[in-house]
Amino acid sequence: MCKSQGIKRVSDIDLPKYRISLCKEHYSEWYRRRIQKTIKKYKMFSEDEKILIAVSGGKDCFALWHSLVKLGYEVDGLFINLGIEKTSEKARDIILAFAKRLGRDVHIVELKEELATIPSLRKIIRKPTCSICGTVKRYYMNKTARDLGYDVLTTGHNLDDEVSVLFGNIINWNIEFLKKQYPVLREGDGFVRKVKPLCKMSEEENRIYCEFNEIIYFKEPCPYSKQATSLKYNALLDQLESEFAGKKLDFYSNFLKKMHPLLNQRIQKKEVGSCEICGEPCFSNKCSICYIREKLDKSYSV
Amino acid sequence: MCKSQGIKRVSDIDLPKYRISLCKEHYSEWYRRRIQKTIKKYKMFSEDEKILIAVSGGKDCFALWHSLVKLGYEVDGLFINLGIEKTSEKARDIILAFAKRLGRDVHIVELKEELATIPSLRKIIRKPTCSICGTVKRYYMNKTARDLGYDVLTTGHNLDDEVSVLFGNIINWNIEFLKKQYPVLREGDGFVRKVKPLCKMSEEENRIYCEFNEIIYFKEPCPYSKQATSLKYNALLDQLESEFAGKKLDFYSNFLKKMHPLLNQRIQKKEVGSCEICGEPCFSNKCSICYIREKLDKSYSV
Repeated sequence: MCKSQGIKRVSDIDLPKYRISLCKEHYSEWYRRRIQKTIKKYKMFSEDEKILIAVSGGKDCFALWHSLVKLGYEVDGLFINLGIEKTSEKARDIILAFAKRLGRDVHIVELKEELATIPSLRKIIRKPTCSICGTVKRYYMNKTARDLGYDVLTTGHNLDDEVSVLFGNIINWNIEFLKKQYPVLREGDGFVRKVKPLCKMSEEENRIYCEFNEIIYFKEPCPYSKQATSLKYNALLDQLESEFAGKKLDFYSNFLKKMHPLLNQRIQKKEVGSCEICGEPCFSNKCSICYIREKLDKSYSV
Repeated sequence: MCKSQGIKRVSDIDLPKYRISLCKEHYSEWYRRRIQKTIKKYKMFSEDEKILIAVSGGKDCFALWHSLVKLGYEVDGLFINLGIEKTSEKARDIILAFAKRLGRDVHIVELKEELATIPSLRKIIRKPTCSICGTVKRYYMNKTARDLGYDVLTTGHNLDDEVSVLFGNIINWNIEFLKKQYPVLREGDGFVRKVKPLCKMSEEENRIYCEFNEIIYFKEPCPYSKQATSLKYNALLDQLESEFAGKKLDFYSNFLKKMHPLLNQRIQKKEVGSCEICGEPCFSNKCSICYIREKLDKSYSV
């Protein structure tokens, strides 16, 4: 029985992790309230700031975009068209339809015009596809948000994503990466503020929100996402969660509360410079995108 | 084929984690060399110090005791007779026989005379049995080693033990416990130096050493050791190790190398006082053993 706000209704969903049962309507309210709490707790942004959300068409970013608009924030979309056969075009159509429903704009970066599509890049650059794609997305998300005058860039990273990355960084003790793992990265040195308001919501909670709000999202997985290691870590973590309900959330929240401040105090911040070719912020003389561009030029001239 | 020291022999054991195959004799040499390396790396003790090893009769402490004697160290045993029906007496006989083989002394603490047996204590003290047993052993191991003039107390904690504890402390972010997790705890304030020379040797490597050296050890598990949580963690960690050979060792070694120094620099050391009843070192006015003793006295007087 849903007892939220004193009204008793038949519940549509049980959330044993939080020891509550909720009807559809109260689930959505509860979900948005939790997001709002995360936004305030980590001082992510205020009502008068311009927000850009990076959207792939998947359930996480759509649940977040819908929630933020419902909470009264001004949020436009950013879609980076990676040029992956079949999937990219389908995702774009779904995103445009959803933006129309929300009454918001979408900016589209055509990777084919800016650099080269992911299928082309993965043939030339000798790195894992997910690593190339991550580098490219980080660069164009930051550049677009900043150039278009947005105050903050938000992504739909969920709790499962964050815990998986955290676990991988702990198993290998990548201290530098651990230090960067925080729901907010502050602006400065050419970087816009980056925030993850879904960092405490699980993939399943986001899926349920989409279902209850009749949100049509893109369901096909990326054809290149076969990262054996992180899939194995995820399987272990899902097992842990199934044995100790709420363990993922505790593990992540306590990391932020108890461990992250210690790392932050100890490790010196790397100095940010700017790329001598394109001028974008980077930590060496040449940024990753200009490095990729050179590789591309060489491959074309062969 | 065992190729150790240039001599080719049929190998008795493959160690894929280290990419070597060894015959029985060279396995034992390799095993002791690794222990010696750990002793030197963490400055555990020198050849002229008096060493006391806590022995339960199990494979880990026996493999360590045998190795240390073979390496030329002066090591006597300490057996705390917990008074557990059937098992404690059997363990004592096996320990006395092994000490005779090594030509070393064993000191025996009779818990029944000092305080009360574990089966009695678990009826009176409302704590998990493993927690009571740990408290009791830590107290009498430290007191005995110090009172008998030993420079250092060593235990047979193996890599699997250490990784399991480390994982539990990380999942719950027990920063204070993480800080204490180190192969050496230095002497001072009434505490003797405590060392774990097997911290980088797996349970299986210790078992093989016992097998190759015809060491008869006590195989029965403790009748109270049913810690559901740590068993579940162990199952997860064993799964991780089976998928990524050597992951446990990497995880533990990198914790010591990269993470532990950060914790150590940040967190203030708790001040050690002494128990106002027995005078043993402790962190409050009364030590855990005197607290247990009071509970016992009350239960007897009822």
